[in-house]
Amino acid sequence: MTDRLHVAVVGGGIRGRMYGAVVQEHPGSTLVGVCETAPAASAAVAEQFAVPVRASLAELLEHVDAVDAVIVATPDFAHREAGELALSHGLHTLFEKPLATTVEDARALRDARPAGVHSMVGFENRWNPSFQSVRAALHESGEAFLAQRAALQDTHWVPREMLAWSSRSTPAWFLMPHSLDMAMWLSGSTPVEVFARGVRTVLAADGIDTWDRVSASFVMSDGSLVTLDSGWALPTGRPAVFDFRFEVETRAGHYLVDVDRSGVTRVTDTGLTYLGPPEHDLRGRLRGAPVEMTRDFIDLCRGADVDVPSLDHGVTVTTAIEALHRSLATGQNIRIDD
Amino acid sequence: MTDRLHVAVVGGGIRGRMYGAVVQEHPGSTLVGVCETAPAASAAVAEQFAVPVRASLAELLEHVDAVDAVIVATPDFAHREAGELALSHGLHTLFEKPLATTVEDARALRDARPAGVHSMVGFENRWNPSFQSVRAALHESGEAFLAQRAALQDTHWVPREMLAWSSRSTPAWFLMPHSLDMAMWLSGSTPVEVFARGVRTVLAADGIDTWDRVSASFVMSDGSLVTLDSGWALPTGRPAVFDFRFEVETRAGHYLVDVDRSGVTRVTDTGLTYLGPPEHDLRGRLRGAPVEMTRDFIDLCRGADVDVPSLDHGVTVTTAIEALHRSLATGQNIRIDD
Amino acid sequence: MTDRLHVAVVGGGIRGRMYGAVVQEHPGSTLVGVCETAPAASAAVAEQFAVPVRASLAELLEHVDAVDAVIVATPDFAHREAGELALSHGLHTLFEKPLATTVEDARALRDARPAGVHSMVGFENRWNPSFQSVRAALHESGEAFLAQRAALQDTHWVPREMLAWSSRSTPAWFLMPHSLDMAMWLSGSTPVEVFARGVRTVLAADGIDTWDRVSASFVMSDGSLVTLDSGWALPTGRPAVFDFRFEVETRAGHYLVDVDRSGVTRVTDTGLTYLGPPEHDLRGRLRGAPVEMTRDFIDLCRGADVDVPSLDHGVTVTTAIEALHRSLATGQNIRIDD
Amino acid sequence: MTDRLHVAVVGGGIRGRMYGAVVQEHPGSTLVGVCETAPAASAAVAEQFAVPVRASLAELLEHVDAVDAVIVATPDFAHREAGELALSHGLHTLFEKPLATTVEDARALRDARPAGVHSMVGFENRWNPSFQSVRAALHESGEAFLAQRAALQDTHWVPREMLAWSSRSTPAWFLMPHSLDMAMWLSGSTPVEVFARGVRTVLAADGIDTWDRVSASFVMSDGSLVTLDSGWALPTGRPAVFDFRFEVETRAGHYLVDVDRSGVTRVTDTGLTYLGPPEHDLRGRLRGAPVEMTRDFIDLCRGADVDVPSLDHGVTVTTAIEALHRSLATGQNIRIDD
Repeated sequence: MTDRLHVAVVGGGIRGRMYGAVVQEHPGSTLVGVCETAPAASAAVAEQFAVPVRASLAELLEHVDAVDAVIVATPDFAHREAGELALSHGLHTLFEKPLATTVEDARALRDARPAGVHSMVGFENRWNPSFQSVRAALHESGEAFLAQRAALQDTHWVPREMLAWSSRSTPAWFLMPHSLDMAMWLSGSTPVEVFARGVRTVLAADGIDTWDRVSASFVMSDGSLVTLDSGWALPTGRPAVFDFRFEVETRAGHYLVDVDRSGVTRVTDTGLTYLGPPEHDLRGRLRGAPVEMTRDFIDLCRGADVDVPSLDHGVTVTTAIEALHRSLATGQNIRIDD
Repeated sequence: MTDRLHVAVVGGGIRGRMYGAVVQEHPGSTLVGVCETAPAASAAVAEQFAVPVRASLAELLEHVDAVDAVIVATPDFAHREAGELALSHGLHTLFEKPLATTVEDARALRDARPAGVHSMVGFENRWNPSFQSVRAALHESGEAFLAQRAALQDTHWVPREMLAWSSRSTPAWFLMPHSLDMAMWLSGSTPVEVFARGVRTVLAADGIDTWDRVSASFVMSDGSLVTLDSGWALPTGRPAVFDFRFEVETRAGHYLVDVDRSGVTRVTDTGLTYLGPPEHDLRGRLRGAPVEMTRDFIDLCRGADVDVPSLDHGVTVTTAIEALHRSLATGQNIRIDD
Repeated sequence: MTDRLHVAVVGGGIRGRMYGAVVQEHPGSTLVGVCETAPAASAAVAEQFAVPVRASLAELLEHVDAVDAVIVATPDFAHREAGELALSHGLHTLFEKPLATTVEDARALRDARPAGVHSMVGFENRWNPSFQSVRAALHESGEAFLAQRAALQDTHWVPREMLAWSSRSTPAWFLMPHSLDMAMWLSGSTPVEVFARGVRTVLAADGIDTWDRVSASFVMSDGSLVTLDSGWALPTGRPAVFDFRFEVETRAGHYLVDVDRSGVTRVTDTGLTYLGPPEHDLRGRLRGAPVEMTRDFIDLCRGADVDVPSLDHGVTVTTAIEALHRSLATGQNIRIDD
Repeated sequence: MTDRLHVAVVGGGIRGRMYGAVVQEHPGSTLVGVCETAPAASAAVAEQFAVPVRASLAELLEHVDAVDAVIVATPDFAHREAGELALSHGLHTLFEKPLATTVEDARALRDARPAGVHSMVGFENRWNPSFQSVRAALHESGEAFLAQRAALQDTHWVPREMLAWSSRSTPAWFLMPHSLDMAMWLSGSTPVEVFARGVRTVLAADGIDTWDRVSASFVMSDGSLVTLDSGWALPTGRPAVFDFRFEVETRAGHYLVDVDRSGVTRVTDTGLTYLGPPEHDLRGRLRGAPVEMTRDFIDLCRGADVDVPSLDHGVTVTTAIEALHRSLATGQNIRIDD
C-alpha cells in the first residue's frame, strides 16, 4: 500500500469539500483537482484546497496528467455523466449515495465499470460504530429477522436552505437510501415489494414541489418487514438537524440505535441541542464516519482489503427507491424487479 | 348525581376484576354481581368481591333485582351476547376495547342501544394525562396534521402466558385499537384506507396460530398518514411488558409520548425495569387511567357531563381493523367503508 | 366526613391561588377569604374567587364568622405570624414548605399547635406517583440505604422573574427542602451532619444577593449519605423550568426518578420543551400532586385517615437547612442538633 | 516520524494486554516484551503476543537490547518501581492512571523524569469524542464555570470479580481520577479544597475491606465547585458495567455527557444492555479511546506534536485524591497543598 493515489473530486459543495479535505489529509493520497461550476462553491474550493478547479471532469482530465480515482459528489440526480466518464477511463470511483435516481442511470454506471477498477457507493452509516456493534451482535447470534423500523427525518431547513435542488429530489431519494442500505446490510436480505404513502402539502405550497413526508413498507427476501419513515418537515427547534432512530426486531432480540443522540446535550438560554462529535481529533486530524469511509476508499484503491458497498448494491437500492416512488404515484403495492 | 348505580361486570379475568374493584370502591356505585364460567376466575372473583357469581348475564339478571349498568369485559371477540342483552334491557353499558372483532358484531351492538342509555368503549389511553397534554396543545395551536406514528408492542409473554385466547386474536386486534383510537382522538380525522403487512413465523410455529408482528399504514380523512406497528414478539427482558411510543407530526410541531416510561427506573442484580405508577394513592384508593375511565363511566350514568368514546366510534375502529386484516390477507390497499 | 370545611388562604400569589382553587372546587370545603396586601395579587384573587380579600389573617378572622382551617402560602420566611395566629385560634393549618426559614420560627409554630388540631407542611412530592412507586418498592424489599443523590435546579428565570423575594431566600431554602424531605420519607432516616459549598457570582452581580448554586452532603441517622445539588442558574432554554433528578442507591437496587420528564416532548421551530401534565382532567377538575395534597389536607380536617408531613418533621427539615447555611458560612462540617 | 519505537509493557492484565495489542498493531512500533509474574496472565500474554515475558522490568531490560518506551500497567499502587527504573534509563513512559496512590510515589516519579524524555498519565477520557466536543464548545464560548458534577460508578462485579486487588484500593482511587482529570481538563482549574464522605458496609462485610461509596466536593482554583460520586456497589443488572454521567454548569450553559450510553440498546429475554462500541473497525483495526491514547503516546515518542496529561498533572490528581482520603478519615474539609 505504498502507491500514492491521485484523486479528483467532482462537486464542490459541502460533501465535495469534505471528500477533498480527507484526500488532502491522507498521507497516501493527493487531491489533484475539483470540478465545480457554481462561482461561490468554486471560490470556496479554490481557497480551501489550492488545486485546479474546472467546470467538468472531462476538462479536468485534459489538464491534469495523473488521475487514479474520482469521487462523484454532484447532486443525487447528476451522477451519471462524471461517473461514466471516470469508469470508462478506468478510474476508481466513489459515488455519493444514492448511486443514481433512475434505474437506467444506476445500471449504466454499474455496467460501465471495467474489470479491476474499484468502485463503491458512499453509504456512510456502515462506518458508524453503533451500527457496526448491532451487526456484530446480530451475526454472532444468527437471529432470524422479524422487522426493522427506521425514521430518518430532517428539519425543514434542509429542503429550504441547505439544498439548492430539493425540488428535484424527495425525502425518499435523499434519506431512505441510508435506511434501506442499513436494513440490507444488517439483515443480508433484499427488498422484494414496496408500498408507500406520502403527504405533499407544506413544501409544495411554498414552491418546493416535493413530498413533505413519506412512509414506506418493504417485504424483504427473507420474509421480514422493513418500514421506513422519512420527511423534510421536522421543526427547526430539534436538538439536531436530523433525527435517525433505527430498530431491529429479531426472534431473540430488539436493538435500538438513536443515531442523532451524540451523547452530549447542551442547553443555553436559546435552547437544547445535541453536540455532534468533533470534526477533528486531539491532533487536528479529521474524524467521523464519512471521513473513515473516504479513507477506506483511498486505501482500497491502494490495495487494502476492505468490504465496501458495491455498484450492484447501489443498483438494488436505486431500484427499490424508484419502485417506492411508483407506489407513491399509483397507490399500489409494487414488486421490485432487480 | 346522588343515585347509586348498581353495576354488573361480565368477565372475571384481570380486567373484569379491575372494573369490579373500581365499582366497589366508588361511593356512588354498588357491584351487584359478576359473570364468569371458568372455575379459577370464579373463585378469585368470589373471594375478592363477596357478590354473586353467575355463568352468564342472563342468569345474573334473573337473580339480581336492581341492575343499572353492565361492564362487558369478556375476551375481545365475545362481547356481543352480553352486550346485546344489556342494551336490550336498557342498561348502561361499557365495553372493553375493541367494541367487537367483526363489523357485524360492532354494528349490531351499536344498533341495539336504546335512546337515553349511556354506552361507551373503553379506550383508556384518553385518560392518560400525557395524551391529554398533547391533545390540549394540538387543539390550542390548531396545527394541521402531517403524520402520526405509533409502536405499541407486547413481549411474547402476553400471547404465551397472559392471554388464554391469543390464537383467536392478533396483535392488530389486541393492540392497534388503542393506537388508532388515539390517532383519531388527537386529530379528529377518521381512517379511509389501510395497507398492512405481517410476519407469521414465531408464534405460529409454537402452536399459537396468529401474527407475530403487523405494520399498517392508514390514510386519514384529512389526508394525513397514520402508521402503526404492533406485535407480540418483543423479548421478555424489556423494562416493561409493553412498549408504547407515539409520535405526532404537524406543520408546526413534533410531539413524542413515551407511554411505557413511567419516570422511574429500577435496577437490581437481575436487570432493569420501569416501575409503573402505584396501584393505589396515599389513602389507599385505586388510581390510574383505567380506574379514572371506569369512574367516569359510573358518573356518566349518574348524570355527569363527560365526553366518552361512543359505540359509533367503536364501530369505526372495528371497521378499520377488520379492513386491515383484509389487507393482510390480500396484499391490497383496502378502502375503509364505514 | 360530612362537615363542610371553611378555609382561609393567606397569600394570593401563584401558590395561594392554586390552594384557593382547590378549596373552591372540593365538594367538602368552602373558601371563605384570602389574605393579600399587594394590589395586583389582590385584584387577581378577587377576580378569580369572589371572596373577601383582606390585608392580614387577623383582619380576615374579624370579618369572617366561620373559619375552620388556614393555608399559609406567604413567602417562605413569612410563615410565622399567620401560622401562630391560626394555630392559637385552634384552626387546622397547612404550611407551604418549608415550615419556616429559622429554627426559632419553626419551633414556635410547632409549639403553637393545640392538641386535636390538624397541621401539616406541604411537601408535595410525596403526592407524586413516581416517588410513591419508589417508596413502595423500597419498603417491600427492606433494602438498606447506601446513598441518595438529588439535583433539583431552576432556570435563572425563577430568581429573576418568578420570585419577588429571591434575594431574601437561597436555592437551598427554596429547593432543597423538597429533596431532603423526599430522602427522609424514602429512607425513614434523619440528617445528623451537613457539609455544604456554594457559588455566589452570577445573581449577586446582578443585584440579587444570594447563592447561584449550592451542593450539600448529609450523613443520615442510618449511616447513609444524601448529596443534594440545587441552584438558580440553569439556562432558560431548558425543556422545563426545573430539572429534578433523584437517585436512590441501596444494597440491592438503584432507583432513578426523572421528575421533570413528563413523558411528553414537544418540538417546534423555537425549541424543545417537556409538556407538563394537564392542569385539569377530562371533566375539567384540577389535577396534579399539589392538588391531591390540598384535597388530602381538607379531608384530613374532615376526619379522613391520611399520613401527612407533620410540623415536627418540618422543624427537622428547617433545622437541617439552617445548619447547611451555617456550613456554607463557615466552611465547616456541621452537626445537626434537632 | 519514521523511527520505529520499541515498547515494553509492564503488567499483563486486561489493561496491559490492551496496550500490548495496540503497540503490536501500530505500524511504527514493536512490542519487545511484557513483564508479568502471575502464571495465568503470563500464559495469556505469551499466547497473545509471542514476545518475551519476564518477571520484572529490570529483568526484561537485561534481556532485550532495544527498548525506547515503557507502558506501566501494574495495579494502581504498584507503579513506582517500574516507573522509576524506566525513567532513570531515559525511557519514554506512559502510566496507567492514576500516576500513583501516594503523593510520595507520584512526586518521586515526576522527579525521576530526565529532560527530553516523554511521559504521560493515561487519562483516557480525553480521547472520548464526547468530552472533546464539550471542551471545544466551552473554549469557544469562554464561559465561566459554576459547577461540575460527575457520577462514575461500577457494579459490584468490579471489586468482587474483575479486580484481584480491590481491597488495596477504593472507588475513589480507582474511579475518581477519571472524573477529576476531566473536570480539570474542561475548566483549566485545579482543586484547592476537598471534603468527602463515604459508606463502608457492604464490601467490608464480605471481606473486601474498602469503601462501597464515596462522595466528594472540591473547591477549584477558579472558585467553582466539583462534586464527584463514585462507588463499587451498583447492581449487576445495570445495562453497562459502569455508569458515567458528567455535567458542566457554566454561566451560559449546561452540558451533559452520558458516557456509558453508547447509542445502542439491546434487549433479549434476559435483559437490557447497552452495546458498547465495537473493538475493531471495518478493517479489523482496534478502535476506541484507550487505543487512540496509546497510539498518540507512540507517536509522541516518535516526534508527533500532541498534548498529553503530564506527570505534573498526575501529581496534582494524586495529591487531591490523597487529600480526599484524609477527609474521609478525619471528617474535615482538607486543604490541597500541591
